[in-house]
Amino acid sequence: MGTLSKLLDRIRIPDGAAGNEARRLLDQLTKPPGSLGRLEELAWRLAEIAGQCPPPLRHPVIFTLVGDHGVVDEGVSAYPRIVTAQMVENFLRGGAAVNVLARHAGARVVVADLGVAGPLAAHPALEARRIAPGTRNMTRGPAMTRDEALAAIEAGVELVLAQRAAGLDLAGTGEMGIGNTTAASAMVAALTGAAAEEVTGSGTGVDEEGRRRKVRAIARALEVNRPDPADGLDVLAKVGGFEIAGLVGVTLAAAAHRVPVILDGFIAGAAALVATRIKPEARRYLLASHRSAEPGHRRVLEALELTPYLDLGMRLGEGTGAALCMSLARAAVAVLTEMATFKSAGVSGALPGAADG
Amino acid sequence: MGTLSKLLDRIRIPDGAAGNEARRLLDQLTKPPGSLGRLEELAWRLAEIAGQCPPPLRHPVIFTLVGDHGVVDEGVSAYPRIVTAQMVENFLRGGAAVNVLARHAGARVVVADLGVAGPLAAHPALEARRIAPGTRNMTRGPAMTRDEALAAIEAGVELVLAQRAAGLDLAGTGEMGIGNTTAASAMVAALTGAAAEEVTGSGTGVDEEGRRRKVRAIARALEVNRPDPADGLDVLAKVGGFEIAGLVGVTLAAAAHRVPVILDGFIAGAAALVATRIKPEARRYLLASHRSAEPGHRRVLEALELTPYLDLGMRLGEGTGAALCMSLARAAVAVLTEMATFKSAGVSGALPGAADG
Repeated sequence: MGTLSKLLDRIRIPDGAAGNEARRLLDQLTKPPGSLGRLEELAWRLAEIAGQCPPPLRHPVIFTLVGDHGVVDEGVSAYPRIVTAQMVENFLRGGAAVNVLARHAGARVVVADLGVAGPLAAHPALEARRIAPGTRNMTRGPAMTRDEALAAIEAGVELVLAQRAAGLDLAGTGEMGIGNTTAASAMVAALTGAAAEEVTGSGTGVDEEGRRRKVRAIARALEVNRPDPADGLDVLAKVGGFEIAGLVGVTLAAAAHRVPVILDGFIAGAAALVATRIKPEARRYLLASHRSAEPGHRRVLEALELTPYLDLGMRLGEGTGAALCMSLARAAVAVLTEMATFKSAGVSGALPGAADG
Repeated sequence: MGTLSKLLDRIRIPDGAAGNEARRLLDQLTKPPGSLGRLEELAWRLAEIAGQCPPPLRHPVIFTLVGDHGVVDEGVSAYPRIVTAQMVENFLRGGAAVNVLARHAGARVVVADLGVAGPLAAHPALEARRIAPGTRNMTRGPAMTRDEALAAIEAGVELVLAQRAAGLDLAGTGEMGIGNTTAASAMVAALTGAAAEEVTGSGTGVDEEGRRRKVRAIARALEVNRPDPADGLDVLAKVGGFEIAGLVGVTLAAAAHRVPVILDGFIAGAAALVATRIKPEARRYLLASHRSAEPGHRRVLEALELTPYLDLGMRLGEGTGAALCMSLARAAVAVLTEMATFKSAGVSGALPGAADG
């Protein structure tokens, strides 16, 4: 963890100056103070994290990291493993949901193979960072070695550093990988102490029998591997996945560079939970985009002490929730930069004695 | 109600064909069925209402209607009455929150004076439809005559017809008027039977004493005027306002032309409630953008049987919530029109026996 530990040293609790400046500005704009609710919170949090008011928003990127999972052999997914590689092609052609929603938000999508099982045709837009062709089946032993997990984290860090050099100022985390809700559920059970039953949902759409297979596979994986809840990296390596480890790196690297991280849903949240176990201060750089329909997401959000901005019953992943929230972030920054103040517009302020005007 | 009754005759329950077509298409796109949650619902409802799949979204408009309120004399607002006229100038200069959020959503804002109290400078973009310089103080008698309320409804209808001629295909309702949460609370109390106490909040930010003054003013207005809950127009005239009546017209005219209506918050919701009392079928053309922090909004949404897409603790009005939801609507339509299908992308479908794939 040599290079990584230098990165971790950079992650400090953000000073509040730019956030306070944003809050003062918001109260001078032509609207009753606080009347834009959480859109105002989003605006000042982006400013606080970036350390600038208004916060920059010129180069937002969704990091969609992809990997396969050995646990798929246990019949935990509604889709065959080959779909992971097929979806990478779909991402690269721009036809997946995350492409559409990122375009809508004016964000680019970085697609990275951290551990896809099958062959993938080379593509100029594909970040080829494969550590191994999928994880091992976690019901029989660790999904990854500790070194493999570290290598995937470092690959995620490198993706951010490359984009940061190009101007990255807002990061979204996304993922794809058949079987990865099973890995994330196992991670969240290990990290929070929740029962597998409580944090396991139907993922891409398995029926109740399939969900019970997931719960059994998770229980077995936890029993076989005994991950140490106090050691995020141990949990990640034993029951996580390459794309999830990559997102741990994305999250930590963005935090180290004061780039706000908009978390997608359940799996991206599990990655963020590991990141905050490794470096608790990283939590202050995170925003939760949406509340996933996956039941385990509630535990993730509680542990991260985050309240999502959107609650649309989504459960797709890829970064789709992060992309929608980036559009909201653009709206929040536009409020800060484009609205008139009471003074500039010649609008009278609140009457004496009004509560908060 | 001669011209109006012709309009009302046009409002029928939409046939489900285009909505069904949208649902079938959504299930063929490269994502687990239903995994985009309420974004999918938004897509097919827009298709159903418009009677086209994909639904058109080239000319969205926020109708921001403005009026003053005699009840302000009772000390019900945190801001002086002059702010209404000042905010019209701000809207016309593009510096208000609704301007910023409408630009973000790629929507235009139509600003209309339905009943501002003070003088307003002529402006090419101002729709001058003033019925009277503000309503009368509803604690002493009807806020408007029935004819005045009808004239305001018809003005709202005309605004929609003019935009429809220019291609209007998505309408948002918004309003501004110092004192108008008091009018809307009185309307919602009258229309739903809720106690004034339950449906009255702090509006633009009055303190608890101010809120109690609002509750007392509403109770007195209801006692003095005895509006008939079965007669939406009676409630509107006696305790409503010119801009609220205008929004009743906007809502009905849009429904009559199969244009989806994205309701803003509490006040726009009160107008929609009147519209559906006048013509119950109009409900099928409505979408609730967001859940307002005003406590009475819950009753409005229950009565309209609508669940909002956003819940951000906003309470500004103007059409700001409708504008944010229009951005979401654009995302939903982009999903329908830009995503690849399983077939076109060569992605395998769900395994046999999976629940819903």
